[in-house]
Amino acid sequence: MASEWQCFFDESKKPEHYERTVTYMKEFVDKCMRQDRPIVLVSSGGTTVPLESRTVRFIDNFSVGTRGATSTEYLLQQGYAVIFLHRRGSLEPFKRHFTHTNLLDLLVTDGGTVHVKDEDSDRVRHLLERYVAVTEAGTLLSVAFTSLNEYLYLLMGAAQVLKTYRHQAMFYLAAAVSDFYIPANEMPEHKIQSDGVPLQISLQLVPKMLQPLVTEWSPDAYVVSFKLETDQDLLIPKARKALKRYSHQLVVANILETRKKYVVMVTQESEQIVKMDDEELSRGQEIEAKIVEEVVKRHRMFIEQRQAETVGF
Amino acid sequence: MASEWQCFFDESKKPEHYERTVTYMKEFVDKCMRQDRPIVLVSSGGTTVPLESRTVRFIDNFSVGTRGATSTEYLLQQGYAVIFLHRRGSLEPFKRHFTHTNLLDLLVTDGGTVHVKDEDSDRVRHLLERYVAVTEAGTLLSVAFTSLNEYLYLLMGAAQVLKTYRHQAMFYLAAAVSDFYIPANEMPEHKIQSDGVPLQISLQLVPKMLQPLVTEWSPDAYVVSFKLETDQDLLIPKARKALKRYSHQLVVANILETRKKYVVMVTQESEQIVKMDDEELSRGQEIEAKIVEEVVKRHRMFIEQRQAETVGF
Repeated sequence: MASEWQCFFDESKKPEHYERTVTYMKEFVDKCMRQDRPIVLVSSGGTTVPLESRTVRFIDNFSVGTRGATSTEYLLQQGYAVIFLHRRGSLEPFKRHFTHTNLLDLLVTDGGTVHVKDEDSDRVRHLLERYVAVTEAGTLLSVAFTSLNEYLYLLMGAAQVLKTYRHQAMFYLAAAVSDFYIPANEMPEHKIQSDGVPLQISLQLVPKMLQPLVTEWSPDAYVVSFKLETDQDLLIPKARKALKRYSHQLVVANILETRKKYVVMVTQESEQIVKMDDEELSRGQEIEAKIVEEVVKRHRMFIEQRQAETVGF
Repeated sequence: MASEWQCFFDESKKPEHYERTVTYMKEFVDKCMRQDRPIVLVSSGGTTVPLESRTVRFIDNFSVGTRGATSTEYLLQQGYAVIFLHRRGSLEPFKRHFTHTNLLDLLVTDGGTVHVKDEDSDRVRHLLERYVAVTEAGTLLSVAFTSLNEYLYLLMGAAQVLKTYRHQAMFYLAAAVSDFYIPANEMPEHKIQSDGVPLQISLQLVPKMLQPLVTEWSPDAYVVSFKLETDQDLLIPKARKALKRYSHQLVVANILETRKKYVVMVTQESEQIVKMDDEELSRGQEIEAKIVEEVVKRHRMFIEQRQAETVGF
């Protein structure tokens, strides 16, 4: 009998250029393998759930992709190659520093060359140098999605490609993935008209893809999932429930309001608080630096254990 | 008895800093009045409809704000002052030209100054000069919203401020406003949990704010609304129905797939097609240039008529 997740993919249309994108990912992974570089797949941003097949309206999740985009910069610094699977239009590493800036406000011209204003020049040069270094090293592969559908297909494709990377691969699943969707055969083709009121929308549960990820697609990888809640009391119980259900390695749990200064790293056996004090925040430091440092340490230990087991065996 | 739209505002929370924003708009309008400059309020981008009061999930409309942001540039060129009421994060005039560009890909540094690459320099300088001219003239006021709620409050505030501007004011309502919402008292506080499946969402109809806009808030203004459909057969009938219902001046009707090359300007008495041929599109010309030219011509005629009526009276 086909499992729930197989049924989901059977019913859902493949994203455009799916095979080509998987091929790019495969080439990237092969190159990193030759360089003996650890790889992480970072998922980032929210997924849309269309309400109509020619989509005018959709359900979305609150997420601008800060966690994923910021963490990617620190993961690159730690020597990882990154497949950055992100919501189209959400924050991106390096580029994110200019989100609230109008490029045109940074520039001046004397009628000839156009250059960055003196007061911004140091900050921009510093970023530019880091960005150019990453571009030249070729350690960042960006892959974009919009809908839930596209995201899940691309996650599967990436995970299947990373299977041979075994315990050297990490999944850092920071995307805010919808729990609910409308199956294609229950969706109207055209824009919903406003005559029938109240409008009733009926949503089905999305199969949890962590399950095939850890059992079939990439069973030897180090898998970190993220949990965002608004109710403090539910946070740790829900993280534990997820760990028990999927047997993956780590849940980074956070509350919507405090997510930039407080997270809990939850495993089956332990809870570790990672937080920022006001001084660190006022200096512009980011909690993702600490999260990544801790996650990378744990991934290294995981790799050593697995290698020791292999040797012992 | 309170009307539907009054009930909506009574039930809904005012946006943060609402009074302050209205004051800014008032100051802007007063300044433009002293300069005897026509004003247009352009609304742009989609509105969100929260599914939870501490919002994690929301319903959104497909719209990146191309029509509004692009039209704003052409309206500024035509000598209008513009209140640009736009979805936070959607396209903005001038800045929009860099949406698909990573700023860092445009720049080079020799370790000292940071400047725009030679190959992009002409294009960026041209834009920068137009942007600086508008900034110095002070003819563009940007006001941002995210939710339906915020949008409707700010539209009301702007319209009330523009009332004294009478027929010299134009409303160019290109925003994709949700037809449906969940009243605050029917909304759960916390993130919806995924235990109850299928999840049923029940949405109520949003009162049409064109009605109080044309009868109470700004009854003498020139009002242009936009209609986006996916079904060609519904387009003109729905535009006519709206004109009949609200007695405003113009509907710009378009189909999702062809909206960048074909629109119909519909009034009670007439239909006028505005379209782009392939050559114009390949030269990078934009249909908004033609739409704005036509709308401005009609607004000028409207002003002349009203002034003639006043003199006659």
